[in-house]
Amino acid sequence: MARLDPASVKALCFDVFGTVVDWRSSIIRECEEFAKRHGSSEDCPDFADRWRAMYQPAMEEVRNGKRAWTKLDDLHRESLGRLAVEFGIQGVLAGDLDDLNRAWHRLDPWPDAVRGLTRLKGKHVLATLSNGNVALMVNMAKRAGLPWDAILGAEVTRHYKPQSGCYLGTAAMLGLRPEECALVAAHNNDLAAARTLGFKTIFVTRPTEHGPGQTKDLTAERDWDVVARDFFDLADQLGC
Amino acid sequence: MARLDPASVKALCFDVFGTVVDWRSSIIRECEEFAKRHGSSEDCPDFADRWRAMYQPAMEEVRNGKRAWTKLDDLHRESLGRLAVEFGIQGVLAGDLDDLNRAWHRLDPWPDAVRGLTRLKGKHVLATLSNGNVALMVNMAKRAGLPWDAILGAEVTRHYKPQSGCYLGTAAMLGLRPEECALVAAHNNDLAAARTLGFKTIFVTRPTEHGPGQTKDLTAERDWDVVARDFFDLADQLGC
Repeated sequence: MARLDPASVKALCFDVFGTVVDWRSSIIRECEEFAKRHGSSEDCPDFADRWRAMYQPAMEEVRNGKRAWTKLDDLHRESLGRLAVEFGIQGVLAGDLDDLNRAWHRLDPWPDAVRGLTRLKGKHVLATLSNGNVALMVNMAKRAGLPWDAILGAEVTRHYKPQSGCYLGTAAMLGLRPEECALVAAHNNDLAAARTLGFKTIFVTRPTEHGPGQTKDLTAERDWDVVARDFFDLADQLGC
Repeated sequence: MARLDPASVKALCFDVFGTVVDWRSSIIRECEEFAKRHGSSEDCPDFADRWRAMYQPAMEEVRNGKRAWTKLDDLHRESLGRLAVEFGIQGVLAGDLDDLNRAWHRLDPWPDAVRGLTRLKGKHVLATLSNGNVALMVNMAKRAGLPWDAILGAEVTRHYKPQSGCYLGTAAMLGLRPEECALVAAHNNDLAAARTLGFKTIFVTRPTEHGPGQTKDLTAERDWDVVARDFFDLADQLGC
């Protein structure tokens, strides 16, 4: 049962990769399609995991000021270039890798996401609070039918989570105090950063985000304001 | 008949005040409600026109660097403070003026707007390219049912139209070249700025935006790529 008063939460701000969409299965699917088109035989689960593993180090160079603001599409593309070398992918054009890079725009939502969000949208502003850039989020939403009210987060605030500017800038653009916003995420560390800044916190379990052998984020590690099995359960708990 | 190939336009970027919503009738309505609540008797059409007349000079101070970035809600609020003095509005709390200021979040759409946008959304990305700030646009859309895919424009680019950064920054965030975007506006000068930068241009006539005596923007003053009577006509011309 929710501990927080749903009426006090004006906006639900969503982490997206892993929380709303199943990035791993989708990247595996895209890798398999790529391999089929090019007659290659990558280990696609390994490919997906290693591409994703390059995500935090790439953003860290922006966070710590080693490089100027760079949007996630460009970080993904640089990682993919290195990954292609590591996997010995040869004889493909740069344009083919550009298209594979846009796999992140074509991630599939978890089965409860679209209908769950549609229920939640009736009573709350729904905003993305993701490290994904605007075009990535817009194209993903358009393809999957995700009913966002606003695409916010890293690119419009020029800060990657867990930097405070990403959360606080998103709340400010919504014209809200942090206390009027809840972060919805499947990741304990994301919620911890948001709580420090005054956000309400909603943990949704996504136990197969990292595949069948997932070991992290299987349970709520703190007393988050709401803990939900999925977006249907969340809508139930918030009375939507 | 449209001269442009609709398939070449990935995103329709909308001017909002006057093009999508009828700001003047809505501000008059809000003014009348305010007067009723406070037992005053403002000339509400004059009040609306004079508030709107303070809009361009206020933004100009940001454009020319006289003041730091300031979002439109704050510019509107400063103008309202001065206007309240000019109209001799007395005995109201600052909070009452704050609420009246949010009248801009409660503007009503033109009768064709919601259904027209919904048709257009099937084939195009719909983004705001307005000088209104994010919260204003989100709250307006939520109340009126405007089905935006993304809220972009001034606040996220930190440039007020007609500065080029507002148009180019919006296209860049959508991951598109200017040529892949069309500005939809009821204002010839907005379209002129967008065309210079490579945007496609769509003029929609709103002959009563400024009331019954409107003299400007009654017709397309250049050979815009599309000229439409309203959003239904636009959807017809674009094959949506």
